[in-house]
Amino acid sequence: MTERVTEVVVTPIAFPDPPLLNATGVHQPWALRTIVELRVGDDLVGLGETYGDAPHLELVRRAAEAVVGVDPFDLADLTRRVSAAVGRVDVPDLHGLTGHSTVKKTVLRVLSPFEVASLDLQGQLVGRPLWALLGGRARESVPFSAYLFYKWAAHPGAEPDEWGEALDPAGIVAQARRMIDRYGFTSIKLKGGVFEPEQEIEAIRALRAQFPDHPLRLDPNAAWSVDTSIKVARETDGLLEYLEDPTPTIEGMAAVAREASMPLATNMCVITFADVKPGFERRAVGVVLSDHHFWGGLRASQRLAGICATWGVGLSMHSNSHLGISLAAMAHLGVATPNLTYAADTHTPWQLGVDVVEQPLSFVDGAVTPPDASGLGVTLDRDALARMHADYLRCGIRQRDDVGYMRQFQPDYELRRPRW
Amino acid sequence: MTERVTEVVVTPIAFPDPPLLNATGVHQPWALRTIVELRVGDDLVGLGETYGDAPHLELVRRAAEAVVGVDPFDLADLTRRVSAAVGRVDVPDLHGLTGHSTVKKTVLRVLSPFEVASLDLQGQLVGRPLWALLGGRARESVPFSAYLFYKWAAHPGAEPDEWGEALDPAGIVAQARRMIDRYGFTSIKLKGGVFEPEQEIEAIRALRAQFPDHPLRLDPNAAWSVDTSIKVARETDGLLEYLEDPTPTIEGMAAVAREASMPLATNMCVITFADVKPGFERRAVGVVLSDHHFWGGLRASQRLAGICATWGVGLSMHSNSHLGISLAAMAHLGVATPNLTYAADTHTPWQLGVDVVEQPLSFVDGAVTPPDASGLGVTLDRDALARMHADYLRCGIRQRDDVGYMRQFQPDYELRRPRW
Repeated sequence: MTERVTEVVVTPIAFPDPPLLNATGVHQPWALRTIVELRVGDDLVGLGETYGDAPHLELVRRAAEAVVGVDPFDLADLTRRVSAAVGRVDVPDLHGLTGHSTVKKTVLRVLSPFEVASLDLQGQLVGRPLWALLGGRARESVPFSAYLFYKWAAHPGAEPDEWGEALDPAGIVAQARRMIDRYGFTSIKLKGGVFEPEQEIEAIRALRAQFPDHPLRLDPNAAWSVDTSIKVARETDGLLEYLEDPTPTIEGMAAVAREASMPLATNMCVITFADVKPGFERRAVGVVLSDHHFWGGLRASQRLAGICATWGVGLSMHSNSHLGISLAAMAHLGVATPNLTYAADTHTPWQLGVDVVEQPLSFVDGAVTPPDASGLGVTLDRDALARMHADYLRCGIRQRDDVGYMRQFQPDYELRRPRW
Repeated sequence: MTERVTEVVVTPIAFPDPPLLNATGVHQPWALRTIVELRVGDDLVGLGETYGDAPHLELVRRAAEAVVGVDPFDLADLTRRVSAAVGRVDVPDLHGLTGHSTVKKTVLRVLSPFEVASLDLQGQLVGRPLWALLGGRARESVPFSAYLFYKWAAHPGAEPDEWGEALDPAGIVAQARRMIDRYGFTSIKLKGGVFEPEQEIEAIRALRAQFPDHPLRLDPNAAWSVDTSIKVARETDGLLEYLEDPTPTIEGMAAVAREASMPLATNMCVITFADVKPGFERRAVGVVLSDHHFWGGLRASQRLAGICATWGVGLSMHSNSHLGISLAAMAHLGVATPNLTYAADTHTPWQLGVDVVEQPLSFVDGAVTPPDASGLGVTLDRDALARMHADYLRCGIRQRDDVGYMRQFQPDYELRRPRW
């Protein structure tokens, strides 16, 4: 008997997002996501979670129609259907925080939630947790890092959020302390590219003083020139586990890598399989931050992991604002990936307790253990989904635009890459 | 419920092998294989097939004990168990036809039949053909090539086999004609390294004249020096789809590749994941002939395929003498591998109709379609298994030794690599 997908439901949702600063501006008050449900009959639901930007959502909806009737075990057929439905379009996002967009990357972004949902169905049909379908369990749990952001105390005109202001080294250290106390993270990443490099280096030094045993990372999202990057690399010699995307392009990263003592990590220059060969052969990166949301799903992420293992390149996981479906997917993928050599990123602390799943996975000592239940092992909270969809409808945001939102308060703000 | 392997049965078998000539001598009258059965309770049997050489068999038996109790979905646990059981030993074969051996390659060779058998069990537990667990169906069937050998009419002292003698271009063309008539192959590979290169080039020219539309390949198993290889490449310019392992080592192949107009293929220099980076970065090979028997199974072969796709390197499949379990595994793997860019090799025509499975898969227009049944979709022929095990016990051969067998008839025969 071959079970087939009988219905696909696509639901755009929104959830409150704190005013987190980055190299392209500031997070808007609402983060968007799209929830994909692949249903088989009345009882089985496979879940996927993806970006919520309107042009992407439209492609997801187009793909959803094409996916009805697919065998959830035939990921090749799924890929053909989604590719045909999407066609040859390039739908970049506005912020560019995951690097350049291409026609191929556009398809893979749309494919991802359907692939995850299919694997969730496979697991449920088999009666096994998803990691079992990804090649077995290489570790018990997946370590994540404390993901620190410079931030305002509140969105202008709104009440302060629970995390408060962080605009200097002391604020960053206080944020780290609070996040580590709450989640137990054993490594720390600072989102940089917000202030002059010297100020961010000061924050790293302050973190090192307060957390002598936590590996530290700094990610300015390609806000620096090659020269500035090399200068920062020298000043942070011995301080950083890795320096993430200091500067744009494979060429730029390779130039920095030749001078830097620490590995360079990326989720901005090696972001599709077409970038891997030039990126690796030019020794531009020592760590790839994989992300199943734009590499094309969990199997594609495993392919990338296999390449990293073969080339001796480190592997971690990138994160944009996400919810509990994606966290579960990352947990299953992470335990099934032998060479996940660094703690992964997550925005979970910035969700402010909101989620679209019942009983979201919890962090113990900074790590997440995937559930023992079949498939992803998480269940949609239907009330939350309805509420978050209503929030989507009323929030007025249809595309993430950190630059545009920043300009509301700082009209001369410009996106420059590099900025320093 | 988690099903676990309750019993493992390892059965060495032998089957008649024609006197096929190659760069290391001649095939003995019996080819050895080892059949691995992973049983779950009384009803489920997962099948794997591997080499039969005694030192390898001993490691397979050691691993078999360690595998009892494994969850067939937890390939990571399977890998840990097999690795621990095998330990740090290097068990090379005597012929070296799949390149050098290493400690790591030894483990992967032992792992392979257990991994295939586990995937067979997974498919049966899920009720899906194995390709569904390997990522879905990229094609309907897997094309194979006509694998031609220089050969004697008979083993000395024995009756001629059905294929007859082939020791010159006319004999090779006749063999090709017969094999293509019977199986419908649409490409042709000649096992070379037996005679002076000029004579083998003559055979290629004769094949081209008689089969103008069949892509041709020549594989001397590293019997040539770099200079000879370059000379042959020039003389076969425009004649060959690819030239396979003309010379030993990545360095040697890279030197030939710089001068050759056709791609070079290999199953002798890029043979473990450790060889991939140097082999690809030095542009030593344009095609990898993957082989799940020594790369570590079907998932590892998919990892290799993903790397080839990413680097723009072609992919085909290598074959040693094998039976129907391995053919089924290759068929499932092949339909699930989008970038299988060349027809695969198979020794099936040289089995002389003997097999260890009931209803072996058949070739239609040179291609094999994997069965629709669950898992591998092939069933052990218990009578054949018993008969072939008895043949193993009485045949007296415990390790494949093409060189030693050739020396029985040509006492001054030496293994030289390169020979010309």
